[in-house]
Amino acid sequence: MAKKSLAIDAMGGDMGPSEIVEGVKLSIDNWQSLEELILVGDENILNPLLKTAKLRNNPKIRVLHASEVIGMDEKPIQSLKKKKDSSMVRALELVKDGEASGILSCGNTGSLMAGGTIKIRPLEGVDRPALAAVMPGRDGHFVLVDVGANPTSEPLNIVHNAVLGSNYARVTLGIEKPRVGLLTIGIEEGKGNEVVNESHKLLKGLQGTIQYEGLIEGFQLFDNAVDVIVCDGFVGNVLLKSSEGLFNMIKDLLKEEMMQGMVRKVGAVMTKGAFTSMKSKLSPERFGGAPLLGLKGHVFKAHGSSNRHSIASGIRVALDLIHCEMLEQVKLDIKSVNEIIKN
Amino acid sequence: MAKKSLAIDAMGGDMGPSEIVEGVKLSIDNWQSLEELILVGDENILNPLLKTAKLRNNPKIRVLHASEVIGMDEKPIQSLKKKKDSSMVRALELVKDGEASGILSCGNTGSLMAGGTIKIRPLEGVDRPALAAVMPGRDGHFVLVDVGANPTSEPLNIVHNAVLGSNYARVTLGIEKPRVGLLTIGIEEGKGNEVVNESHKLLKGLQGTIQYEGLIEGFQLFDNAVDVIVCDGFVGNVLLKSSEGLFNMIKDLLKEEMMQGMVRKVGAVMTKGAFTSMKSKLSPERFGGAPLLGLKGHVFKAHGSSNRHSIASGIRVALDLIHCEMLEQVKLDIKSVNEIIKN
Repeated sequence: MAKKSLAIDAMGGDMGPSEIVEGVKLSIDNWQSLEELILVGDENILNPLLKTAKLRNNPKIRVLHASEVIGMDEKPIQSLKKKKDSSMVRALELVKDGEASGILSCGNTGSLMAGGTIKIRPLEGVDRPALAAVMPGRDGHFVLVDVGANPTSEPLNIVHNAVLGSNYARVTLGIEKPRVGLLTIGIEEGKGNEVVNESHKLLKGLQGTIQYEGLIEGFQLFDNAVDVIVCDGFVGNVLLKSSEGLFNMIKDLLKEEMMQGMVRKVGAVMTKGAFTSMKSKLSPERFGGAPLLGLKGHVFKAHGSSNRHSIASGIRVALDLIHCEMLEQVKLDIKSVNEIIKN
Repeated sequence: MAKKSLAIDAMGGDMGPSEIVEGVKLSIDNWQSLEELILVGDENILNPLLKTAKLRNNPKIRVLHASEVIGMDEKPIQSLKKKKDSSMVRALELVKDGEASGILSCGNTGSLMAGGTIKIRPLEGVDRPALAAVMPGRDGHFVLVDVGANPTSEPLNIVHNAVLGSNYARVTLGIEKPRVGLLTIGIEEGKGNEVVNESHKLLKGLQGTIQYEGLIEGFQLFDNAVDVIVCDGFVGNVLLKSSEGLFNMIKDLLKEEMMQGMVRKVGAVMTKGAFTSMKSKLSPERFGGAPLLGLKGHVFKAHGSSNRHSIASGIRVALDLIHCEMLEQVKLDIKSVNEIIKN
């Protein structure tokens, strides 16, 4: 089994390595179960940053030199082939070789997903990895999976999303038996599309392995009727991004309206706490990113524009996944559902 | 050509025929170009309601008796077969027979879509009708199509959605050359799924017929980058419903937060206007529902829970579509894009 260590692609992302080092520092309280944190990137940049952050002599931190960086707009497969000494490729190889059990990166999403799949490889019995996101609901958070790894999913992929999402919800939301719902466009059976209808049949046969609650509609998405919502990567990606777009629009329009006239401006000051409280309830920042689930190692994608706090959250979640040995349970569950479906 | 008249399924919906009659009354200012408004339903119920509303002797109103009502939860095809004397079936037949050029109903959506397709029939060259919705954006409204009629769309259906949506946006939003965007999960070409990639190719070849602006992502959905967004009916339906769910959640959470403590309560009163103004900007009520586009007559679905104001808006939009002879332009455009694609 791989060491309980985490490789960090220290060069990826919009904010640069100094923000990543600050995020590493903020996460220090969560390192109890960690054996090693490996910062991968240009040592001429990283060592001085670590020194400034007073982390240079921390026994749990190691720097692995990598001379190249994959840019945010490079093409996934080409970037991986061309930049073999990039921080991302080197970090992926640490996981592949068992020197680290997971990687965290805020770099190029496509490169990380392709690199994770090609280098770390899917778990036995899993065809396609899936990207999971934690979303805010009325009474707490839920997991949406897949949010973009696999835009054309087969029913078996959707079933695996349910297994992967359940395990992720268990570890990251602390729910022992997460309830799973399948996203569709009308809860009457037969109203979705072929993939949904077939997935629904398969999921119904898995009671006991997965806590399947049935079909759910878009209306119910934020009502916490279930803890895990499964869908294909196209629908999930559109949902994730459009929800963020809608949230930002409402926030901005309301802000504009609140600044119209003196009375509203004063009222805005008096109600500021309400907005702050709502924003912190709905902000996904405390989950710091999205894991690519279904691989032989942990691959954790933090947002490209992550600040130090998001990076610290990402490290915390990644360490939770490593610490709980989630992969062991996923392997058992995948084996079990694949056997039920075959028979 | 059919008469410029509108058939109204006066028995469908959650609020009952009295609310529909009140909606009819509120819409009276929009009747200039209308030849006849045919209220279809139980005459023993409708005539007294019309009398109370002082519409009994209006020369533009006619009642057509129908003894049955299709319930909101009945199965589409079965309900149409079983209840031949229902208000919805009778109203659909008025359009089929050319006695009315359109139907408005707040009844069972599935029955109306199936009934519209079976009885009124698609326009020549259109395989699948599409449901369109007007959605609020930062700087105005946009049309999303398909929001649920056709959950498994082929590329040609998506192209037709662009034609149908453009014509609807032209009439209902008053935009002469609506810009069209294709919803995907990453604006780099090749990142979507097969249907999206093939649709993108086809749409690019139609410049001049359609104002195609290219791919758009979920993030941009509410930014009014385009006036018409096309997608398959599964994605569109999930988007429409989840946006409503998210909007309601934000509204409710904020309301709760605003009631915490005396200072916030006073602030809430002072900022009430900001909320009212934002809600009215974002409310889809003034479009009163969604048309099923691509048929030989106008089929307009109002929300099941429509109140009199929504019904009046629905009638206004339906009359706009009839008045502008939108179908004539749609026929020309469909013919033109089908010819380009064939060659």
